[in-house]
Amino acid sequence: MRANIKRNNQKRVAIVGGGLAGLQLALRLRHTDFQVVLVDKNNYNQFPPLIYQVASAGLEPSSISFPFRRLFQNQRNFYFRMGEALSVDNDERVLHTSFGTLHYDYLVLAAGATTNFFGNVNIEREALPMKTVTEAMKLRNTVLQNLEKAETEDDEHHRQSLLNIVIVGGGPSGVEIAGALAEMKRTVVPRDYPDLDANRMNIYLVNADRRLLKSMDSASSARAEKDLREMGVNVMPGYTVVDCRSGQVMLSDGSSIDARTVIWVSGIRASTIGGIPQTSIGHAGRVLTDRFNNVKGMAGVYAIGDQSLVEGDADYPLGHPQLAQVAIQQATNVAENLMRINRNEQPRPFTYRNLGTMATIGRKRAVAEIGRFKFGGLSAWLLWLVVHLRSILGVKNKTVIFLNWMWNYFNYKQSLRLILKSECKTIETNKK
Amino acid sequence: MRANIKRNNQKRVAIVGGGLAGLQLALRLRHTDFQVVLVDKNNYNQFPPLIYQVASAGLEPSSISFPFRRLFQNQRNFYFRMGEALSVDNDERVLHTSFGTLHYDYLVLAAGATTNFFGNVNIEREALPMKTVTEAMKLRNTVLQNLEKAETEDDEHHRQSLLNIVIVGGGPSGVEIAGALAEMKRTVVPRDYPDLDANRMNIYLVNADRRLLKSMDSASSARAEKDLREMGVNVMPGYTVVDCRSGQVMLSDGSSIDARTVIWVSGIRASTIGGIPQTSIGHAGRVLTDRFNNVKGMAGVYAIGDQSLVEGDADYPLGHPQLAQVAIQQATNVAENLMRINRNEQPRPFTYRNLGTMATIGRKRAVAEIGRFKFGGLSAWLLWLVVHLRSILGVKNKTVIFLNWMWNYFNYKQSLRLILKSECKTIETNKK
Repeated sequence: MRANIKRNNQKRVAIVGGGLAGLQLALRLRHTDFQVVLVDKNNYNQFPPLIYQVASAGLEPSSISFPFRRLFQNQRNFYFRMGEALSVDNDERVLHTSFGTLHYDYLVLAAGATTNFFGNVNIEREALPMKTVTEAMKLRNTVLQNLEKAETEDDEHHRQSLLNIVIVGGGPSGVEIAGALAEMKRTVVPRDYPDLDANRMNIYLVNADRRLLKSMDSASSARAEKDLREMGVNVMPGYTVVDCRSGQVMLSDGSSIDARTVIWVSGIRASTIGGIPQTSIGHAGRVLTDRFNNVKGMAGVYAIGDQSLVEGDADYPLGHPQLAQVAIQQATNVAENLMRINRNEQPRPFTYRNLGTMATIGRKRAVAEIGRFKFGGLSAWLLWLVVHLRSILGVKNKTVIFLNWMWNYFNYKQSLRLILKSECKTIETNKK
Repeated sequence: MRANIKRNNQKRVAIVGGGLAGLQLALRLRHTDFQVVLVDKNNYNQFPPLIYQVASAGLEPSSISFPFRRLFQNQRNFYFRMGEALSVDNDERVLHTSFGTLHYDYLVLAAGATTNFFGNVNIEREALPMKTVTEAMKLRNTVLQNLEKAETEDDEHHRQSLLNIVIVGGGPSGVEIAGALAEMKRTVVPRDYPDLDANRMNIYLVNADRRLLKSMDSASSARAEKDLREMGVNVMPGYTVVDCRSGQVMLSDGSSIDARTVIWVSGIRASTIGGIPQTSIGHAGRVLTDRFNNVKGMAGVYAIGDQSLVEGDADYPLGHPQLAQVAIQQATNVAENLMRINRNEQPRPFTYRNLGTMATIGRKRAVAEIGRFKFGGLSAWLLWLVVHLRSILGVKNKTVIFLNWMWNYFNYKQSLRLILKSECKTIETNKK
């Protein structure tokens, strides 16, 4: 097999990964004099900030996913290839992929990050990550299935473990899914499962740090904790999960919680690709780059977004935080630099401009920090809605999400409570 | 485990299967003096007439699926239990299920039918059925994935087999999916896959009978065939598929078609359950009943819908056709009879009233027969849209489907072209 793309007189930019960074880069290179080839395992871009709403049955996967081919219809200098990027051979300027080899002039690694289980295979086997739409669907199915099982379970102890949910990690994802599940417990469960005692559905939020949302101000952390506690979440600061076996979650203080639903949002690890020298790989697998996002020791190869770690920025000696804003800004800068290089101009180093951070907790509850302004409650929640609705791609997706949010707001109930499973034979049956 | 439902002074009606028939029965028994227990493998009802639109990426699964618990919220005499019905012990009036035993006063079998592969294991392994939302998702994924693979396939012959689609069965499902895929070929493929030659995507509709839609009038059959041919479908009447191996579809005349996508909508077989005497099982597994839908030799046990075969109706000596209308009308009659029996009145035999049949072929193309009126084209298509929109449960689903249809109509393109897979570990990881 081969990439099957004709070379022309344009320089080719190959992008690995169509997440926020990769997509932004491809969009920035539209209407330019580059041939762009985007490689991704999926045929769609997904919007990370709303994945927790798919997991909590508030939104459909299709509302936050956008097929690449649709996005770049009628874009003559753009090619999409579905498959896995395996390794880089920068001497030959070739990317080896599952669909064959791809020559490039410039290569941009934007494959993001995956869940970090820190080498604990038990946790990896039992706990549910929440980084992708697929994982979110599985999480949703598990939560709903365990409620169904609890209905018919005789054994008191096992029934309780089906009703317990442990969330590990108190960053934005942990806070958001905890809030969403607490709302499900309050509004959906009593009506849908009248035979279950909804009060017995316990939601634990285990966090290694003393405070939640530690990348935010301590006032925001305190507010998030207070809000979650009011919503009935058992916030457990200063605890870590050390193991997970047969539905038993072992904590650092020797105690344990029996829970059949364990959600792991406790850390990430950069995606890997072969051919990068070991000396160019930093903390948690991040690919080390200079201030131009140029990979250390690999001319013409760039790394952006969660997969990268920019060295040499005095304001961020440990690298920039792995946030959406950083990914988008790095992509924009690399796109502009490629155009500058093409014009024989000097590229410019990346500087991060913090536009603010926010996290939603629940209905009319959120925290936001923009410059010196730190606020919470209804205003932060409304701002969160507007910002995320604006960022979602496509008029139709915007409309559908807006309608869903309105519907859920006035109905106090999610209606997407389907345990939908697509079968696994899909790939095998169609292999050569 | 146990069903976990308290008996009260109400007679209990256990219903196996929440398809059109089972759901209709449960809805009819709302606000009555029966305790209703619905057992289904899934936690949602699905709407069969629109499954082909999920398969062809025109609608999301959630738009045609409705969670049972949501439907029966605040319904005090209703209980839902997710699980599989295994066997009936009518001497003890007990249904054995995957979640334990369930006592009943009346039992209604409404488990529908599954795809009939007529014992050919090769076909069962390679071909894709289209009876459920899950199967439709898998079919959608396969079609899209094969287009992606075709893009990077070097081998001319193998690329062609990735582009060929064989649909087996010329009933409404076969006609509808053939039309929907033909529209995808015409509108979506050229724009999304500019490197592929859309003309090389061949859609074959193989039908054993000389005419399509043989349950309809021959004028409708002719119209459907003409429309499909105009849309570029290779209709192959009078052919049967005898085997299917490694992407090669063998036909009855000794010829074969290389196709990686084979859709099997060629026949159904009634769902099975243990404990029914062999003498009470008729053609293609259908459970034999008298004219009151009472299972032969099993007092208090009824069978309705696709799973049943009513004997003794002079107008239908081979039983009624396995259609949505029959299922709904049988459910209504059984519900009324149960209430009559409760009031010590005589039950009434089932009589089928044919309200008409229709099948959609494509944009502004459909065929309809209502009484003596037989028509096609735009008017039939609009009627089809109205009838199906009316039948869909829930205001929100109606709205979403209507918006989707409008969107696709004016845009000439489906936007749900996501290859979304939920993972398979879901069940295993949460087992005790």
